[in-house]
Amino acid sequence: MGKTDWKAEAKGLMKKLKALKAVGEPAATRKPDKTVSPLAPETFPLLPAIAGVEFAAAEAGVRYANRKDLMLIRLAPGTVMAGAFTRSTTRSACVRDCEVKLGQRLRGEPGAAIIVNSGNSNAFTGAVGDVAVAAVTGAVASALSLPGSRVFSSSTGVIGEPLPHARITACVPNLIEGLQSDGIEMAARAMMTTDTFPKGATANVAGDGGLIRIAGIAKGSGMIAPDMATMLVYIFTDARITQKMLQRMVSRNLDASFNSITVDSDTSTSDTLLVAATGQSPAAPVTGAVAKAFEAALKSVMADLALQVVRDGEGATKLVEVRVTGAASDSDAAKAAFAVANSPLVKTAVAGQDPNWGRIVAAIGKSGAKAERDLLTIRLGSILVAKNGWRNPSYKEEEGAAYMQGNSLVICVDLGLGRAKRSVWTCDLTDRYVAINADYRS
Amino acid sequence: MGKTDWKAEAKGLMKKLKALKAVGEPAATRKPDKTVSPLAPETFPLLPAIAGVEFAAAEAGVRYANRKDLMLIRLAPGTVMAGAFTRSTTRSACVRDCEVKLGQRLRGEPGAAIIVNSGNSNAFTGAVGDVAVAAVTGAVASALSLPGSRVFSSSTGVIGEPLPHARITACVPNLIEGLQSDGIEMAARAMMTTDTFPKGATANVAGDGGLIRIAGIAKGSGMIAPDMATMLVYIFTDARITQKMLQRMVSRNLDASFNSITVDSDTSTSDTLLVAATGQSPAAPVTGAVAKAFEAALKSVMADLALQVVRDGEGATKLVEVRVTGAASDSDAAKAAFAVANSPLVKTAVAGQDPNWGRIVAAIGKSGAKAERDLLTIRLGSILVAKNGWRNPSYKEEEGAAYMQGNSLVICVDLGLGRAKRSVWTCDLTDRYVAINADYRS
Repeated sequence: MGKTDWKAEAKGLMKKLKALKAVGEPAATRKPDKTVSPLAPETFPLLPAIAGVEFAAAEAGVRYANRKDLMLIRLAPGTVMAGAFTRSTTRSACVRDCEVKLGQRLRGEPGAAIIVNSGNSNAFTGAVGDVAVAAVTGAVASALSLPGSRVFSSSTGVIGEPLPHARITACVPNLIEGLQSDGIEMAARAMMTTDTFPKGATANVAGDGGLIRIAGIAKGSGMIAPDMATMLVYIFTDARITQKMLQRMVSRNLDASFNSITVDSDTSTSDTLLVAATGQSPAAPVTGAVAKAFEAALKSVMADLALQVVRDGEGATKLVEVRVTGAASDSDAAKAAFAVANSPLVKTAVAGQDPNWGRIVAAIGKSGAKAERDLLTIRLGSILVAKNGWRNPSYKEEEGAAYMQGNSLVICVDLGLGRAKRSVWTCDLTDRYVAINADYRS
Repeated sequence: MGKTDWKAEAKGLMKKLKALKAVGEPAATRKPDKTVSPLAPETFPLLPAIAGVEFAAAEAGVRYANRKDLMLIRLAPGTVMAGAFTRSTTRSACVRDCEVKLGQRLRGEPGAAIIVNSGNSNAFTGAVGDVAVAAVTGAVASALSLPGSRVFSSSTGVIGEPLPHARITACVPNLIEGLQSDGIEMAARAMMTTDTFPKGATANVAGDGGLIRIAGIAKGSGMIAPDMATMLVYIFTDARITQKMLQRMVSRNLDASFNSITVDSDTSTSDTLLVAATGQSPAAPVTGAVAKAFEAALKSVMADLALQVVRDGEGATKLVEVRVTGAASDSDAAKAAFAVANSPLVKTAVAGQDPNWGRIVAAIGKSGAKAERDLLTIRLGSILVAKNGWRNPSYKEEEGAAYMQGNSLVICVDLGLGRAKRSVWTCDLTDRYVAINADYRS
C-alpha cells in the first residue's frame, strides 16, 4: 500500500469516527469505557472476614442510577482508628471532618462507622458541605447509637456540586439491616467510579497466641480524574494495638506506599486512608517482634493497594517503577524520582515503547535534585544505557526497544552522589488518558 | 441511530484505523506531521535589518538531509552580549560554554558570532561534547578572526549522541561567504525542528537622536519534545547600551516572558537566550527615559516570542493564560499559576472544551500555595464561576461551555489573600501531543 493511500484512508476513517461520535450517544448518557485495565490482577483476592467489621452497600442515586454508590462499614466497640489524608488546601468537607474526628480521643473506644458515597465529592461546596457531612454522619451515629465523632465519611465524585445528603440518609436504615461480615468485595465495588477493577489486599501475622489478620480495599484510577475519581483506602485488622502505635505505623509507611504513586501528578481533594483495628484477634496485644511483623504486613497491604491504583491508572498500558539511588538526600531522591515519573515526555515515550533515555536525563536535569552529569548512571531494567556522562558504548538501541515491550518496567537512575534512594510507581501516558479526560464529560 | 449501532460501528472503525496504522508507513520513514499550528500567526512579521548583524544558513546534514540545519550570525565589533540559559543540571555542552563566555569581559568589545545547529543537542555527551563545542566555535573564531571567547554556539536535537562537528566546521567557509544583513527569516527557519512555523518579533524605540531597532527570532514547540525540540531565542538591537544594563534588563524580564510559559512542564537541556546590541544606531547611548522605553520594547519582543513558542506547542489547539491574583507572595502566585497550567486534567479539559472548574480548584489545592477555600474566586474569561468557597449561584454551565469554544482562553484565579500576581501561558493537552511524542520516533 502506498504512503499516500494509507494516509488518505486513515484520515477518512478518523473523520468518519469523529462525525459518528458527534451524532452518537448524547453527552448526558455517555459513560467512560469500562474495559478492564490490561494491568489488572486476574481476580479480586480472597479477603478474610475481620472480626468486628461489617459491610453494607446500597443504591442511593447520588448521581448515577442503577448502581450501588453508597457503602457503610460498622466497626465493633474497642476499635482504634488511624489514618492519613490529602494535604490539598481545597480538600473536601468530609476530609476536614475526618481529620478533626481522628484527632479526638474518647474514653472506652466505642464502636465506629465509615460511610462512603460516590458521584459527588462534596468538595468546594462551602458551608453547605459541612452541613451535608453533619447530616450524613449524624444519621449514621444516631441509627447505630454511636457518638457523632466516631462516624467517618468519604465522598468521591464531581467537585463543587451540593451533596444531596437526604438521598444518603434515607438509605441508612436499609444499610444497617444489610450489614454482613463477608461484604468487603461488595464494599470495594460500591466505591468504584472510573476504576476498571475493585482493589483488595490481605496479609496475616502470627501473633502471640493466635493469628492477626489484615484486609484492605481501595478505589482510585487518576488522582482526581475525571472529575469523579480520587483515592480512598480502608484497611481493617483484628489486631489488639494502641491507637498511637497504629497511627505511627501508618504514618511511617505512607511515603513508601501511597505517597510513592503518581498517575498524572494531580492530587485529589478527597484522598483518604482509614485504618481500623478491632482488637478482636485471639492474639495478645501487639508489641516487640510481633509489632515489627505486623508493621511489615500492614506495609505490604498498603503498598499492594497503592500499586493496584497505578495499575488502574486511566489509559495505562504499562506499570513503571522509577528507582532512584545514590541521591545526596532523601528530598533529592524524591525530587528526581517524581520528576521522571511525572514527565509527560517520559510517560509518552513509555506508551510508545521508545527507549528514549534522553528524556530521562532531561527530567533529572529539571528536577531540582543535585546531579552531576558525569556521575549519572541510567538503566532500563538491568540494561546499562548511560554512564560517566555518556551513552554506554556497548548499549544497543534494539536491546532497549525490546525491554520497553514489557508491561512492567523499571527505570533505574543512580545519581552517584550519596546513599539516599526512592522508588516511585507510575504508568504511561496514552491517547486513552486524553480521551477519557477530554472527550468525556462527567 | 441506536446506541449499540453507534458503538459497534465506531469500534469497527477504530480497529480498522489501528490496523491501517500498523501496516502503514514503516517506522523509520515516519516524520512528525508538519501541519501548521492552528494558533500560528498569519505570517512571519516583517523584521527590520539591524545594523551590524548578518545571517547565513547551510545544509550541514547533521542529522537530516536536504534541509538547512545550520545557521551563523556575525555581530559587528562593539557588540555587547547578554543572555540567559536553562538551569537544568544536565544542560548541554554548548550551554555551559556560553555561560562561561558570557561571564568574561574583553577590552574593546570585538565582534562576536553565534552558530546554531539542529538535529543534535550535544547534551549528555561527556567530554567529547566539550571537544565538539571547541572545534565548532574555534573554526568560526579563526575564520572570522575573533577571540574564541566571542563565539557562542547552540545545538538542538537528539540527546546523548556525539555531535558530528566535522560536518559543521566544513560548512563554515560557505556560511561566511553567504552572510547577509536581511537573512533573519532564513535563520529563523534554519533552526526549526518540530516547530510548525518560524517565530519572529520586532519593536522600535525613539532614541535620543534616532531610532533604536529590536528584532528577535525563536524556535521551540515543546520544552524538549520530541527529542529534538528546545527553546532557542536570539534578539538583536542596534542600541548603544552597556553590557551591564543590557544583562540587567534581560534578567529582569525573564520571569514575565520565557519563564512564564509551559507546554508540557518539561525543561530542555539546551534552552538559550542571547541578546546582542551592536551599538550602531544613530541614537545616543541608552539612559534615563529612553532606557525605560527600550526595556519596555525589549520586554514586548521577549513576551511576543515566548507566546509564539506556546502557540506552536505540540498538538496545541488552544492558547491559555492562567492569571493568578491575590496571592500572599510572588512565590505562591507562581506556584498556583504553574500548578494550573501544568495540570494534565486542566489541560485535557481545555482540549475537550469542558468548563471543568473543579479541576482548577484541585490544581490550586495541590500547588503548595497558601489558599483558603472561602476566599477563592475563579473566572473563565469574565464569567464568574466560583466565589466564597462555592459555585456562583447564577453561573450557567452553558456559558462556561460556550466560552471554552474559543481558541484563546483566560483562566482567572484570585486567591483573595494578598497582592501578588503571576500570569503563565500554556496550551491544551491533546491526543496529538501523545501521538507526536509516543507514536513517532526521532
